[in-house]
Amino acid sequence: MTDRAPVARSSSGFSAWRLISEELRLDIDGGRLHTGDRLPTENVLAERFGVNRHTARQAIAALAEEGLVESRRGSGTFVTGQAVRLHRIGLRTRMTTSLGDQGPSSTNRVLHSAIEDAPAEIARRLRLDGSRAIRIETTRSTGGQQISVSTHWFDLERLPDIATPLRRTGSVTAALHASGIDDYVRASTVVGARHATATESELLALGPGAIVLVTEALDTLPGGTPLQHVVTRFAAQRVRLDIEHPRAD
Amino acid sequence: MTDRAPVARSSSGFSAWRLISEELRLDIDGGRLHTGDRLPTENVLAERFGVNRHTARQAIAALAEEGLVESRRGSGTFVTGQAVRLHRIGLRTRMTTSLGDQGPSSTNRVLHSAIEDAPAEIARRLRLDGSRAIRIETTRSTGGQQISVSTHWFDLERLPDIATPLRRTGSVTAALHASGIDDYVRASTVVGARHATATESELLALGPGAIVLVTEALDTLPGGTPLQHVVTRFAAQRVRLDIEHPRAD
Repeated sequence: MTDRAPVARSSSGFSAWRLISEELRLDIDGGRLHTGDRLPTENVLAERFGVNRHTARQAIAALAEEGLVESRRGSGTFVTGQAVRLHRIGLRTRMTTSLGDQGPSSTNRVLHSAIEDAPAEIARRLRLDGSRAIRIETTRSTGGQQISVSTHWFDLERLPDIATPLRRTGSVTAALHASGIDDYVRASTVVGARHATATESELLALGPGAIVLVTEALDTLPGGTPLQHVVTRFAAQRVRLDIEHPRAD
Repeated sequence: MTDRAPVARSSSGFSAWRLISEELRLDIDGGRLHTGDRLPTENVLAERFGVNRHTARQAIAALAEEGLVESRRGSGTFVTGQAVRLHRIGLRTRMTTSLGDQGPSSTNRVLHSAIEDAPAEIARRLRLDGSRAIRIETTRSTGGQQISVSTHWFDLERLPDIATPLRRTGSVTAALHASGIDDYVRASTVVGARHATATESELLALGPGAIVLVTEALDTLPGGTPLQHVVTRFAAQRVRLDIEHPRAD
């Protein structure tokens, strides 16, 4: 365990218990604590971080709530080794395939769809030229875990009926296929990270202070005609993005 | 401003002022507040979020400390429009070029280098076969802003002298060139996000609760021989990753 500094500084804007749970999470993420390892006891943590036992207990409880550790009566708290899923991002990014490869197939749920004017930047990227847009909000879960929420934008003129097959199949690829589009490619992806909003936390079943990885992407026909602008927020504690690089020539 | 819920819940592990500053940051990031826009006053924020004026002031001060807003005497607090830098990730990822394109050239500083046994997973990826590794810690800044910190791993047998030219030139590409390697490619990149550690916050000049985008990457010779395993932590509030996709055929 490296990088340690006393964490009980209430002036930082974080409760002491949250700072401790973040440090323990780093130990788990960084491989210093492995699946099956026993966590230090409340007393040991309290002493190490200069807090009382109640605070140490809160830190452990927060990790247990996320499923990262589990308490076993009489023997302590252990790292569960909850898998982080890899989501592939590449030329032919297909959400359903990408996450489905790793376990139970993923399901996609349409929460809401609306016809409206797209924000200027999205209108430009989709080359809407004054046409209105369809905005569709979806969530995705895999193996019972909430993975991501997405906001999709499509050109209303080009794809007036996209919402119906998307709602029915839960797959953008299938919905585009139903609209006569057999192939599409990823033209651009920009990745950032920020704290989840209250709504995102609720949809993704995240605790306070949780982080989302945000991808802003444009999918086009192989010839370059824009099809979909999509902003996806992944639960960072459950997902990493695996970038596909072309083979070197 | 959408997605609003009262945020003054101390049981969440976050201070009310931090939740408010995060909401305001989302407004800025999401384009609801633009460069030059005036922020709502302390009184308006206090009322909207159900907190006292002191808490609203703390939220604004946190954003000012990051340079996202600035107060002008007598006229209010305004969005500065601090640019988020795009860092390109692709087949021939070159840190120096990638960030240098967007403004003042970036400088890279070697903090520390050591010869040691690499963790098993890194030894496997670098095909060390029992050879020891060189670990080098660097930080990078552009235009006076701290951008990232990196931990680089190289095979000691293959690149025994890499630290010296890296220290001198501040560039991995130049250091590899000095070691007789003219070309290398990115073989894999995995992107995640988490809260910054205390050390990372200090090196990157980040406030409490700041987020880092973490990339774990492997660079190889064009033929596939591993050269460098590198873990980079980018200040998420200043950097987005721009993924390079190959052209569709």
